[in-house]
Amino acid sequence: MSDWLTAVKWNEQGLVPAIAQDYNSGRILMVAWMNHDALQETADSGRAVYFSRSRQRLWRKGEESGNYQVVHELRLDCDADVIQLQVEQRGGIACHTGRESCFYRVFKDGDWQTVEPILKDPAEIYGG
Amino acid sequence: MSDWLTAVKWNEQGLVPAIAQDYNSGRILMVAWMNHDALQETADSGRAVYFSRSRQRLWRKGEESGNYQVVHELRLDCDADVIQLQVEQRGGIACHTGRESCFYRVFKDGDWQTVEPILKDPAEIYGG
Repeated sequence: MSDWLTAVKWNEQGLVPAIAQDYNSGRILMVAWMNHDALQETADSGRAVYFSRSRQRLWRKGEESGNYQVVHELRLDCDADVIQLQVEQRGGIACHTGRESCFYRVFKDGDWQTVEPILKDPAEIYGG
Repeated sequence: MSDWLTAVKWNEQGLVPAIAQDYNSGRILMVAWMNHDALQETADSGRAVYFSRSRQRLWRKGEESGNYQVVHELRLDCDADVIQLQVEQRGGIACHTGRESCFYRVFKDGDWQTVEPILKDPAEIYGG
């Protein structure tokens, strides 16, 4: 493994959380996981690649939906256990619910309230 | 536990990651962990409270440094396992290294490069 990959503090499962932030708006779009292969491929290809814990394999964001992420910058935090990606979100939809961002619920009046519209029906996105 | 707290998918340790984003600039400042007491107190007090895994206790951000975080908004992601906080970072320093943000290393030319200045000596911040 290259030095820059060994500098990352992978957890017991060999993963680190990765935050995708919209390069233009600064919005936090999603949080997913990366293993070293995902991070290596992200750096090499310039597109966000995550590790799907449910499917236990590399997840090339947009492989099904077409909504891939062009990576402008990769950052590492002080503890070396979180990655930050500055991305251009193709299609303007990062969330599997068809919303721009996965963070569409705001805490208000004692509960989480959905404050963001569905931009596209997930059935349509995923060819259902 | 209140409904809004049970809606959160706490991990095996009873924790979720929490991302603090600067309310004004949109910069991602840090990622820490919260348990339900931390999230409850954050909502009640309007200041960011995390759970320190190393000290195994509530960590009222700024309790030592004075650099507390005024919380403007709390969000939950689609999987209900990540919290996002919009904060006003008092003192302009979120990182224990004395930098504005914990994400001060950028991947460039095959390695992580430090691109942000230390704004204040940590020894001074923590009264060393």
